[in-house]
Amino acid sequence: MDAEPSAENVDEWLARIRSFLTILATRKKREFHRRVSIGDLLTEREDNAAAYGFGEGTTMYDNVLVLGDVRIGRHTWIGPGCILDGSGGGLEIGDWCSISAGAQIYTHHTVNRSISLGRLPVDYAPTRIGNGVYLGPNAIVQMGVTIGDRSVIGANSLVNRDIPAGARAFGSPARLR
Amino acid sequence: MDAEPSAENVDEWLARIRSFLTILATRKKREFHRRVSIGDLLTEREDNAAAYGFGEGTTMYDNVLVLGDVRIGRHTWIGPGCILDGSGGGLEIGDWCSISAGAQIYTHHTVNRSISLGRLPVDYAPTRIGNGVYLGPNAIVQMGVTIGDRSVIGANSLVNRDIPAGARAFGSPARLR
Amino acid sequence: MDAEPSAENVDEWLARIRSFLTILATRKKREFHRRVSIGDLLTEREDNAAAYGFGEGTTMYDNVLVLGDVRIGRHTWIGPGCILDGSGGGLEIGDWCSISAGAQIYTHHTVNRSISLGRLPVDYAPTRIGNGVYLGPNAIVQMGVTIGDRSVIGANSLVNRDIPAGARAFGSPARLR
Repeated sequence: MDAEPSAENVDEWLARIRSFLTILATRKKREFHRRVSIGDLLTEREDNAAAYGFGEGTTMYDNVLVLGDVRIGRHTWIGPGCILDGSGGGLEIGDWCSISAGAQIYTHHTVNRSISLGRLPVDYAPTRIGNGVYLGPNAIVQMGVTIGDRSVIGANSLVNRDIPAGARAFGSPARLR
Repeated sequence: MDAEPSAENVDEWLARIRSFLTILATRKKREFHRRVSIGDLLTEREDNAAAYGFGEGTTMYDNVLVLGDVRIGRHTWIGPGCILDGSGGGLEIGDWCSISAGAQIYTHHTVNRSISLGRLPVDYAPTRIGNGVYLGPNAIVQMGVTIGDRSVIGANSLVNRDIPAGARAFGSPARLR
Repeated sequence: MDAEPSAENVDEWLARIRSFLTILATRKKREFHRRVSIGDLLTEREDNAAAYGFGEGTTMYDNVLVLGDVRIGRHTWIGPGCILDGSGGGLEIGDWCSISAGAQIYTHHTVNRSISLGRLPVDYAPTRIGNGVYLGPNAIVQMGVTIGDRSVIGANSLVNRDIPAGARAFGSPARLR
């Protein structure tokens, strides 16, 4: 088999890679009773979090996009498909949070840049999430928001203003209950 | 080129991998008129579903996260970015369902564990989805819910109580229409 | 080390791949102050967009699923986890749009196919998005919709009817504000 990929040998390469991935997936299912993406077969969630400087016990799936200045404490769970955007002045997230799958936390938006066809700049503001916060699946946190300790944000919510500590907020936009 | 990756040869490795991926992507576009992630260039959706024991004709994209005891019937379509969580006592999904992209179906939640800073346990309850169910894009199904046969759940909905067979439910939380 | 993967050498393969990925991730963090998925370490967003024929300055993350006939203009940003479905008669997107992370734009649905257990066909209709449109994170655009120039669609919205140029629409279903 040639070392250089070509239309002639591409299926040989593919078969070899699939054989490797099947071994990893079989082991993952046997040891952890789960199946994960290729990205998560090839990386470990603890390593992904530690490589960006996050605290001990914090884990992060491979397909999480992290931008700029993001600081995260200890024992926080970061699900697949999340976006942690610290490009706009910094994003802070505390300890023991659940950042559920598909949640997106922003410190910028491109509304004005888009509708001006690129003439206006990107908008920025820092965002802060306390300790023990549960952020539900697919929840969106807009730039500039502060979410207090031990609050609960429902699935599919849009958070566009500050949430006090210990609150429960649901909906788009999220309202206190 | 060295067999061991290093800062010196990493671009050679990268060029070779990109050449391989470009061949696969070109073939995918020619044969199927689509572009998919690297994970889906390297795996087949039927194989992904069969490897977890799902029924004949069921397909699943590479970046679907499957946890624990999940049983799925035949001819069910599972889109990219979905989460199928059977960690909390079992998740059952029937035949001919559409589990649209980004949909997440749970048998656990970590609300109490997060807001107690890890002192309280994770909550669990089994979830069941019948035959012929359409679950819209980014819909969330909470733990403990049963969704009856041939029901339709709208995009971006949050299902937090049982849905009868043949119903249409939309919104967060989902209400019958 | 054997060229063929096996249960005996799989950890050697894995260690070599992780070494390669760590070099790429370290370089990405140093040069761009971010971390991306493996798919985005191995591809460039400009290349991904150009390979499907999109316009100059348009970028697209690796895990975007593109189906069928999709035409996109210049300087449009396409976030991670998006779905761009042109399988149902064509999807057109203009210049300077923000297609935020997790947004999904459709030209088909499988509601009737699912609830008929496969007896009814898939439904199709073409979809069109103008120039300078901001489509928020996790927004869903149903088949057959036209969104006018410079309009703003909120995060987590569901767009199921036409949106005029310059409008702002929010919610599920999206309503004009």
